[in-house]
Amino acid sequence: MHKSRLAGFIIDCNTTDLQGAARFWGGALGMQLRQLPETEGEKYVRLVDPEERLHIEVQAVTHPSRVHLDIETDDIEAEVRRLEGLGAKRLAQVHTWWVMEAPSGQRFCVVRAQSKDFATGANEWP
Amino acid sequence: MHKSRLAGFIIDCNTTDLQGAARFWGGALGMQLRQLPETEGEKYVRLVDPEERLHIEVQAVTHPSRVHLDIETDDIEAEVRRLEGLGAKRLAQVHTWWVMEAPSGQRFCVVRAQSKDFATGANEWP
Repeated sequence: MHKSRLAGFIIDCNTTDLQGAARFWGGALGMQLRQLPETEGEKYVRLVDPEERLHIEVQAVTHPSRVHLDIETDDIEAEVRRLEGLGAKRLAQVHTWWVMEAPSGQRFCVVRAQSKDFATGANEWP
Repeated sequence: MHKSRLAGFIIDCNTTDLQGAARFWGGALGMQLRQLPETEGEKYVRLVDPEERLHIEVQAVTHPSRVHLDIETDDIEAEVRRLEGLGAKRLAQVHTWWVMEAPSGQRFCVVRAQSKDFATGANEWP
């Protein structure tokens, strides 16, 4: 038994100006920026959803700009296997998470559970 | 004065098998599929977030697969102008909505307010 659910999304921006990109997206979505500490802060800025619906970050990347979804889970290996069973493919393991590709071509990440209400909000898989 | 906020996202799938793509994403995110009526149903399948956090649809498209964000508003023209002021560009008007491009390159849509809790949850702009 393990659990997973949609955690949120990352706005991947091909830019050397992470703060400028974060200011645009924060303004567009009406969300405050939260600077992250240390090395994480060089690549990511958190956007704070006032309704606390989702975990959203702006990320500086070197690949083309896009938006990607994050699925959070309490068992990364079990969740990756479940998603492989649905047709997704493993692309790369990065730190604690896996980058996967959907049958329809979008990349997404499987990450460790991070939401306050994960235990009550997540789906349980046999 | 007008209001806007993040409505949700659309999973654009370059596929002739919309139902197959929707089944994958529904399974991956643990969300039920809701078929839409008539012509809308040929291009879109709704994914029902059990926590009602966001409006999510899977769309069959002819461009490369991606994920795009939707911003909902009670005044499309005023919201498009506000976003232009932040640096976004108008790309195309489609039915009632506008396709725009962020300074960081992602496309997103400005659509009519559709959420039940729009009035209380949205940001108000002067």
